[in-house]
Amino acid sequence: MSHFDDETRLRPHGDGLRWQADVSAAWNIGQNPNGGYLLSLVGTALQQATPGQPDPLSITAHYLRPGLGGQPGEVAVDVLRRGRALSTARATLRQDGQPRLEVLAAMGDLGPAGTPPVGPQITLPPPELPPPDDCPGRSAPAQGVSLSILDRLDIRLHPLHARPGEVGRALVSGWIRFRDGRDADPLACLLMADAFPPAVFGLLGLVGWVPTVELTVHLRARPAPGWLRVQFVANDLADGRVIEDGALWDSTGRLVAQSRQLALVRLPGGGASG
Amino acid sequence: MSHFDDETRLRPHGDGLRWQADVSAAWNIGQNPNGGYLLSLVGTALQQATPGQPDPLSITAHYLRPGLGGQPGEVAVDVLRRGRALSTARATLRQDGQPRLEVLAAMGDLGPAGTPPVGPQITLPPPELPPPDDCPGRSAPAQGVSLSILDRLDIRLHPLHARPGEVGRALVSGWIRFRDGRDADPLACLLMADAFPPAVFGLLGLVGWVPTVELTVHLRARPAPGWLRVQFVANDLADGRVIEDGALWDSTGRLVAQSRQLALVRLPGGGASG
Repeated sequence: MSHFDDETRLRPHGDGLRWQADVSAAWNIGQNPNGGYLLSLVGTALQQATPGQPDPLSITAHYLRPGLGGQPGEVAVDVLRRGRALSTARATLRQDGQPRLEVLAAMGDLGPAGTPPVGPQITLPPPELPPPDDCPGRSAPAQGVSLSILDRLDIRLHPLHARPGEVGRALVSGWIRFRDGRDADPLACLLMADAFPPAVFGLLGLVGWVPTVELTVHLRARPAPGWLRVQFVANDLADGRVIEDGALWDSTGRLVAQSRQLALVRLPGGGASG
Repeated sequence: MSHFDDETRLRPHGDGLRWQADVSAAWNIGQNPNGGYLLSLVGTALQQATPGQPDPLSITAHYLRPGLGGQPGEVAVDVLRRGRALSTARATLRQDGQPRLEVLAAMGDLGPAGTPPVGPQITLPPPELPPPDDCPGRSAPAQGVSLSILDRLDIRLHPLHARPGEVGRALVSGWIRFRDGRDADPLACLLMADAFPPAVFGLLGLVGWVPTVELTVHLRARPAPGWLRVQFVANDLADGRVIEDGALWDSTGRLVAQSRQLALVRLPGGGASG
């Protein structure tokens, strides 16, 4: 068993589509669980609620309150429409009596890894990257900020993107995989779409905190085993709100996920707030 | 009064955050109301449910079933969290007893049009376009398909993008405004983010139907009066599912909205289906 499987496990609870979870602190960024980890936990419940349609083809999470690592949680799912190829469902993660994540998803089946795509194709080419061994690992941004998640995920940054502010663009690219050797699957891609340093760090240097308001991930194909290659870019920052676009490719160069998030850039002495 | 205001009007209904609407057929594409129109109708209800926070900073709609033009509908809103600067709410549009749209949104306040952005900025530059008078109007794609929406919206296409398949890229750009002279506001941007021909037409020519599974719009600024400039691009098509990215700029060149949707490309004799 992998840590990811252990730490996204759910127990059926009561009647209907409700599960209990132990929200782990092992995926924390600072004091709170990573938003992608919480989303993959909710994705596990969605998967169980839509048999035969295990993959979120589109999934949107709104982050209402920070999650609580090391505390129990409850996920409730409501299937809004069951279709032959696609079903739509919403889900809520609650901890300590309060909703933390509200999620809306279209569930389907990406088919086996390595299946050639059907029909006409357009694709985003993967970025050029030095091999993982030539890319430095992600590290904690400052003394006193702990990134427990780095014990679970091996994150390598493009050498030009490893020092905040140095690339002069709101861009970060690199490699990611689980440290324990588990290969990425679609639910793991939800986590990996939110585990890199914010792209704005590339332009602005370290800004204290970039909380996610909303994250949408589109899963495009089941990844082949091995490292995932990722790139995140922010092309739109104003009024303390940034849109960050991400893309993930598997070890064969196939695009497996796209992501977009709206986040707040909390600048010292001002900026937007929730 | 404008047609858009008339045709997105809601009447309070029963207790709590519920409204009745007359879903107009005037915004139809073929037999069904445009998805952007339905989203702006739901946006009107969200606006009423979150006083002082009139603008969807992030709004995601999942299209469960086609809407019914010319029939009544009911919108129910549930505010999940009220915050000082942002509130999160979900909403359902029902017609004929069945849910049609499920929506999740973060509501806030974009401030007055023309306010200079605060803090560091990154922005997408608007595309080069000939003036509106040199751009042909959008027309119905084929005999027998009526686009009632073109009586409400004046849509001008870049001359190179006006004939399906001709540009050789999944790209469409142009201009849009209401025919009756009403200026666009944030809710109108929700409509206008879904009123152009699908970008894949630029590459593939006419494919019969490109139904939206999910549409997310991020509103970035309140638009100044006048034409909106828009561009839609599909960089990711596989297995009959396409991701289309859009951006809208106001008459001063300011980026006012970004959109992304997941749609199905139904090719003759195959492709994905819901």
